[in-house]
Amino acid sequence: MNILVLSGSNVGNKTRIATQALYEQLSDFTDSEVSINYLNVQDLDLMFSDGRHFLDYTGDTGRLVQAVMDSDLIFIGTPIFQASIPASLKNVFDLLPQKALERKTVGILVTAGSNKHYLIPEIQLKPILSYLKASIVPNYLFIHDTAFDHEKLIDDDVYFRLQTLIQDSLILARAMQNAWQEQDDAFDF
Amino acid sequence: MNILVLSGSNVGNKTRIATQALYEQLSDFTDSEVSINYLNVQDLDLMFSDGRHFLDYTGDTGRLVQAVMDSDLIFIGTPIFQASIPASLKNVFDLLPQKALERKTVGILVTAGSNKHYLIPEIQLKPILSYLKASIVPNYLFIHDTAFDHEKLIDDDVYFRLQTLIQDSLILARAMQNAWQEQDDAFDF
Amino acid sequence: MNILVLSGSNVGNKTRIATQALYEQLSDFTDSEVSINYLNVQDLDLMFSDGRHFLDYTGDTGRLVQAVMDSDLIFIGTPIFQASIPASLKNVFDLLPQKALERKTVGILVTAGSNKHYLIPEIQLKPILSYLKASIVPNYLFIHDTAFDHEKLIDDDVYFRLQTLIQDSLILARAMQNAWQEQDDAFDF
Amino acid sequence: MNILVLSGSNVGNKTRIATQALYEQLSDFTDSEVSINYLNVQDLDLMFSDGRHFLDYTGDTGRLVQAVMDSDLIFIGTPIFQASIPASLKNVFDLLPQKALERKTVGILVTAGSNKHYLIPEIQLKPILSYLKASIVPNYLFIHDTAFDHEKLIDDDVYFRLQTLIQDSLILARAMQNAWQEQDDAFDF
Repeated sequence: MNILVLSGSNVGNKTRIATQALYEQLSDFTDSEVSINYLNVQDLDLMFSDGRHFLDYTGDTGRLVQAVMDSDLIFIGTPIFQASIPASLKNVFDLLPQKALERKTVGILVTAGSNKHYLIPEIQLKPILSYLKASIVPNYLFIHDTAFDHEKLIDDDVYFRLQTLIQDSLILARAMQNAWQEQDDAFDF
Repeated sequence: MNILVLSGSNVGNKTRIATQALYEQLSDFTDSEVSINYLNVQDLDLMFSDGRHFLDYTGDTGRLVQAVMDSDLIFIGTPIFQASIPASLKNVFDLLPQKALERKTVGILVTAGSNKHYLIPEIQLKPILSYLKASIVPNYLFIHDTAFDHEKLIDDDVYFRLQTLIQDSLILARAMQNAWQEQDDAFDF
Repeated sequence: MNILVLSGSNVGNKTRIATQALYEQLSDFTDSEVSINYLNVQDLDLMFSDGRHFLDYTGDTGRLVQAVMDSDLIFIGTPIFQASIPASLKNVFDLLPQKALERKTVGILVTAGSNKHYLIPEIQLKPILSYLKASIVPNYLFIHDTAFDHEKLIDDDVYFRLQTLIQDSLILARAMQNAWQEQDDAFDF
Repeated sequence: MNILVLSGSNVGNKTRIATQALYEQLSDFTDSEVSINYLNVQDLDLMFSDGRHFLDYTGDTGRLVQAVMDSDLIFIGTPIFQASIPASLKNVFDLLPQKALERKTVGILVTAGSNKHYLIPEIQLKPILSYLKASIVPNYLFIHDTAFDHEKLIDDDVYFRLQTLIQDSLILARAMQNAWQEQDDAFDF
């Protein structure tokens, strides 16, 4: 199983800190047959989608697209900007082909300055993931800005909830991988 | 596994016809260990939710609530009224307790007069099911009114898509049942 | 101008208390040419929409429909049930004809137990009002349950925000009435 | 009154063609006291929002932000990418300060390849505009791809509907400008 942890914000450090904490905990829940990859759009030199075929992107943009397409389970970390996901994350989706997330499981981690934005992932992010045919982990992790101090997560409860997100995501990803395998086997003789 | 097919409309006949067709096909995909129940809110004398504990409803209302709570997989059939689900279906959810659909899988079947309403289930129904903690089958079946003539489904393609909805739903329901069982077993010694 | 204040919940008392407080303040902002009507679905014996023509409803149901159709400005009060508006309010919309709220202005007042539901009116209520062609007051009044104690609003700030909702709504309603009048006059010679 | 027509897509030509057609018709509905500006993100060298103060952007990015902030009425043209607005348009919003669209009216024009995406503006765009405090024209113009042939709009009905969007937008913008002016005058003595 290939896991990708993707930090989708090119502003601020909270989403980066939270996705890195998730990345560090992931190894406690996986064995050596799982490959884990971490990408932060802040570290990449990405272009806006210009409508070309996804295989034709080059450089960091091509590398990001390939990492998404190669993954079985993706943890998407996002802040809330202007009551939605940031353009930097929407652009990742715009770079992908139709149905790009078919047979991929997606777990969601959100950092936000207000509980009033709690439903943004439900209404602005999940419908996009559904359209891309992702298998979505129902419960997402919503981390309020007060859980951060400078460069650290200071709310211990968040570590517990990171583990819950990881477990929920691995359960769904493995269950669906088995189910898809059985489905393929049934047609494959 | 207990399966409930629920027709959520108290007006018209298209949702009833479509859910009955789904109900009739279900037996081809299940064995004798699966119990299948069909309920149509049109046949029931239901009261509006008045906020009481869900076990305190009586008559048809109590029977409906119990059927939902007893099920492992629910197929919800709904028309689109005024750009949302009808009050008759929303009322079913209002009758239920918090997290009523935890560890239940839900497949969705929609009948509508316009393709412009294609996204209503995504934005008006799925967020409610998510809040109730359902495991939601990502792809729903959207049936345009032109697929019906009088009391019949006349579009053969719909039968094929009914099968796809049934298969997708059974795959997710069984995969998650296994995963939840494993999870329980791991804690249960 | 006919104003209708409508409390859309048949459970609990917070939406009723808040809409009554709004109703009482309204007279400070209007003159004798404005008629103000208050309806609470709890006081009415309403049936579920059964798809008939809106003029054919009788009794309390017919009276409610007529009051909505006769109004120029409607203040809709709603609680949040299961992450959406209650069936009792959705039913009011189901009773109405297409485009029922054309040339009507709607202000929204919400009572809720959690800030996490702040966006429910934006995503579950406004799209329905848009479909019914209402002119919607952009800013709604969201009142947290902690503003209530027994039968009273105890948060003084809510009174200030009630006034803001009233003012915003009257400004939009009057501005649009003038604009529609001018538009009609231009065609009317 | 300053009007900005903004084409928000950096891929394809349909949104550009439609917004240009709107721009050309605008002069029939306005007099010399109205200034009309046209911007297409395809013609601009824009950077991703990096969180800086909106006045600190330079070059084309600064010019775009300034044009938005200076406008009273904005026509936003957008295609649908991956079931939402494109990153190129979301980025425009990310560049703006909080409440950037307060006392501004926004009309929406959408081009899309499927009627199934009809509600995307309602659920993915209007909530963002609401958050930014825009006064939103309720009815948007949805143009199906079949209305275009090469570099032209070939569906005459679209020209009629462009006029309706322009009229609706001017009515709301003028009505609200008068109302805000009255409001200011009342406080301003």
